[in-house]
Amino acid sequence: MASPLTPRARDFPRWYQDVITQAELADNGPVRGTMVIRPWGFSIWERMQGEIDARIKDAGADNAYFPLFIPEGYLQREAEHVEGFSPELAVVTHGGGRKLEEPVVVRPTSETVINSFFAKWIQSYRDLPLLLNQWANVVRWELRPRLFLRTSEFLWQEGHTAHATADEARDYALRILSDVYVSTMVGVLAGPVLTGHKTARERFAGAIRTWTCEGMMGDGKALQMGTSHELGQNFARAFGIQYSTATGAQEYVWQTSWGASTRLVGALIMAHGDDAGLRLPPQLAPIEVVVLVVKEGEGVAVAATQLVTELRDAGHRVRLDDRVDVSFGRRSIDWELKGVPIRLEVGPRDLAGGQVTVVRRDLREKKSVPVTGAAQHVLDALVDAQRGLLREAQARMEERTARVKTVDEAAEAATAGFATLPWDAVGVEGEARLAEAGVSVRCLQRADGSLALAHDEPGLVAVVAKAY
Amino acid sequence: MASPLTPRARDFPRWYQDVITQAELADNGPVRGTMVIRPWGFSIWERMQGEIDARIKDAGADNAYFPLFIPEGYLQREAEHVEGFSPELAVVTHGGGRKLEEPVVVRPTSETVINSFFAKWIQSYRDLPLLLNQWANVVRWELRPRLFLRTSEFLWQEGHTAHATADEARDYALRILSDVYVSTMVGVLAGPVLTGHKTARERFAGAIRTWTCEGMMGDGKALQMGTSHELGQNFARAFGIQYSTATGAQEYVWQTSWGASTRLVGALIMAHGDDAGLRLPPQLAPIEVVVLVVKEGEGVAVAATQLVTELRDAGHRVRLDDRVDVSFGRRSIDWELKGVPIRLEVGPRDLAGGQVTVVRRDLREKKSVPVTGAAQHVLDALVDAQRGLLREAQARMEERTARVKTVDEAAEAATAGFATLPWDAVGVEGEARLAEAGVSVRCLQRADGSLALAHDEPGLVAVVAKAY
Repeated sequence: MASPLTPRARDFPRWYQDVITQAELADNGPVRGTMVIRPWGFSIWERMQGEIDARIKDAGADNAYFPLFIPEGYLQREAEHVEGFSPELAVVTHGGGRKLEEPVVVRPTSETVINSFFAKWIQSYRDLPLLLNQWANVVRWELRPRLFLRTSEFLWQEGHTAHATADEARDYALRILSDVYVSTMVGVLAGPVLTGHKTARERFAGAIRTWTCEGMMGDGKALQMGTSHELGQNFARAFGIQYSTATGAQEYVWQTSWGASTRLVGALIMAHGDDAGLRLPPQLAPIEVVVLVVKEGEGVAVAATQLVTELRDAGHRVRLDDRVDVSFGRRSIDWELKGVPIRLEVGPRDLAGGQVTVVRRDLREKKSVPVTGAAQHVLDALVDAQRGLLREAQARMEERTARVKTVDEAAEAATAGFATLPWDAVGVEGEARLAEAGVSVRCLQRADGSLALAHDEPGLVAVVAKAY
Repeated sequence: MASPLTPRARDFPRWYQDVITQAELADNGPVRGTMVIRPWGFSIWERMQGEIDARIKDAGADNAYFPLFIPEGYLQREAEHVEGFSPELAVVTHGGGRKLEEPVVVRPTSETVINSFFAKWIQSYRDLPLLLNQWANVVRWELRPRLFLRTSEFLWQEGHTAHATADEARDYALRILSDVYVSTMVGVLAGPVLTGHKTARERFAGAIRTWTCEGMMGDGKALQMGTSHELGQNFARAFGIQYSTATGAQEYVWQTSWGASTRLVGALIMAHGDDAGLRLPPQLAPIEVVVLVVKEGEGVAVAATQLVTELRDAGHRVRLDDRVDVSFGRRSIDWELKGVPIRLEVGPRDLAGGQVTVVRRDLREKKSVPVTGAAQHVLDALVDAQRGLLREAQARMEERTARVKTVDEAAEAATAGFATLPWDAVGVEGEARLAEAGVSVRCLQRADGSLALAHDEPGLVAVVAKAY
């Protein structure tokens, strides 16, 4: 059976849509731009949530929940913020059968409502730092929706913190960037990322500094994987969030906010997918190994069940597929589409010779192995597949990143991948020219790839690319 | 230090509000009827979610996610459903700066949007059963909001399933009732429940049968803890959900839906709380044991840390509170308000005599125990506290349930607790008369408390009460 997908080389966006449909990841909702996340897609998101949530808790933040509805007036308190979000708002004008006195907006992000509570909860330096996170749906009306990447409603986590000093706020924003986002992207999603800060043009509406991690997709375009903002005292002043210091003075707090969303599922598809479908890194995969009964036969059921048990006992996520009423070919293709890292095929013919077949999704490579050592072989393959996917994505990012010197060269290079050039050679004007070619500055960093902490540090490098 | 709470006996509703404020569980949101769930309240909800989610997965259902926004027209397809929910809808009329062509409603529940997809996904008997669940926020405009119990936005899980036959659908609805809801309520929340089915008057809008579990609160009122509905073919016909049988015939599916919400946090407060605050069952508590450093002194830090480690190694959720700059009295009261089951006090004076103090929240009982056996003492106390809270709530439900014969007696008895009487003595008219007294039929069951499977089974008993 042939793959039901459009080849990537022929039409990458169409391949992306095909994977989502064929792997049963998501569907368009009935209201324009909304999305139904189907069980397989949702189980991937749940795994991402679990990994990110554990890291957020390790960083000392507590989960909480703030309301979906925000009074329209709240958004207007921070000037840049309202300007940034106004065009994307969904507005509720009627509730309980009546016209509302003041319309309410559906949260596009929760800075305004959360900070109105920070103002109430924070009184003294003893209340700091205040470190909260919420998992929620948010709504930003989309004119050109694309599943997972740009949807009118999406799921995310948004962290919001308040600190006594600017340095503490920056340290925390950077800690989230490295210990939550980069750690999850590289360690779990097997996706290498570049880190840096955004230009004024690309910064979050209301932030003084936006830190970002950017990944490269299979077509060479960039995707922002997570951002961590220093908000300075902008919201503190807008919402009156003050604390009394140990000496009794009144000071405004320094804040951060940071988020990652269901876009990551889109990133995962485009970072690792191939012409046969999704390829999931084992660390993330909801099912790491599917034990596939090829067809019924002597000892097959027993052998398959035993392999499942052995792998589960070793702490892995394993599914038994013994639906022998569905053709072997159909099931193989489906598991490939869904990206399960290892397929362990157990059939009567192989088994008579004491063998089973191990199929690696990342390499699309089949191997006959003795049934006795099969579980250990699979465990090793899982480790190798995780490393292999990261290495492959790293090699692509290196190959497809051009070092250039001028804005024109950068625009040209960005048709195939990333380009890096001195930020001095770009500047605000160059950035505007790049934008005309659909290219943006993804981040600024030092020449060695490290983060530039000072606002006006000389010698910065701009990473530019077309982006999702 | 005295408890900052209004005594329950003086004013139960005010006590409830005091607990929520003083234990920092929740706050009112800025839009009428909405709620901010603060970290302690949310950590309790997260524990409930985890327990319920694991049971849902054990019952074979997969998580998915459907959109927040539903086209207004969808709700109108099932007649009873739209009638039930119309008065409570929030309506979005503007999106992305423009008036929408068709207004969209914010989901009050997701039957309509989910079933529009079931119609697309279900083709053949091989696609059945389809068992989905989602964790989501829903909106039902509330005129008389009360935190956790009735809020315009609340968090819940809603399961939606489709089956080939009516019997299968019923079996599954009942499986969810017992294996998910009753199991969680009794086994984790230590809350005894009565189970039965709702009368036509109390049934979910669009269901043919609503199964419920009902708990008794500290003031003798009832609270619905979770419901599981048989939807018959109502939505299947409204949305055209048909499957081809093995013989090629076209049939409508039979469906269920079921949900439990953040109301459960309110139930927990009212079922176990006392005049000192919340009392959490250990199985549920986000922190089972707080190890409290009374004040600094020789060996105190080492002993406290060692106890924390020992209890954590035994698989328990333990917090070290060594904030000696906050008074011991203040901290003790705060942990009592928050309901942490066991407080283990480590101070220099006790420790000099080789002792620490174990305080049980459920009994408000202090005991000096040798530091060497303290961890084991705590482990035993946790088991005992879990059982004790369930026993106490069971005793209350038995004491405060009156067996009566007439509607008038039932209305009278319902001022103090539950009443049971023959359903034949109530009927539709009696139910209307009870409603005038603010009393409702919570459920119908057999005389022995078991579920009545037949619609018209004789000898049914009605459980009536005032309810939240």
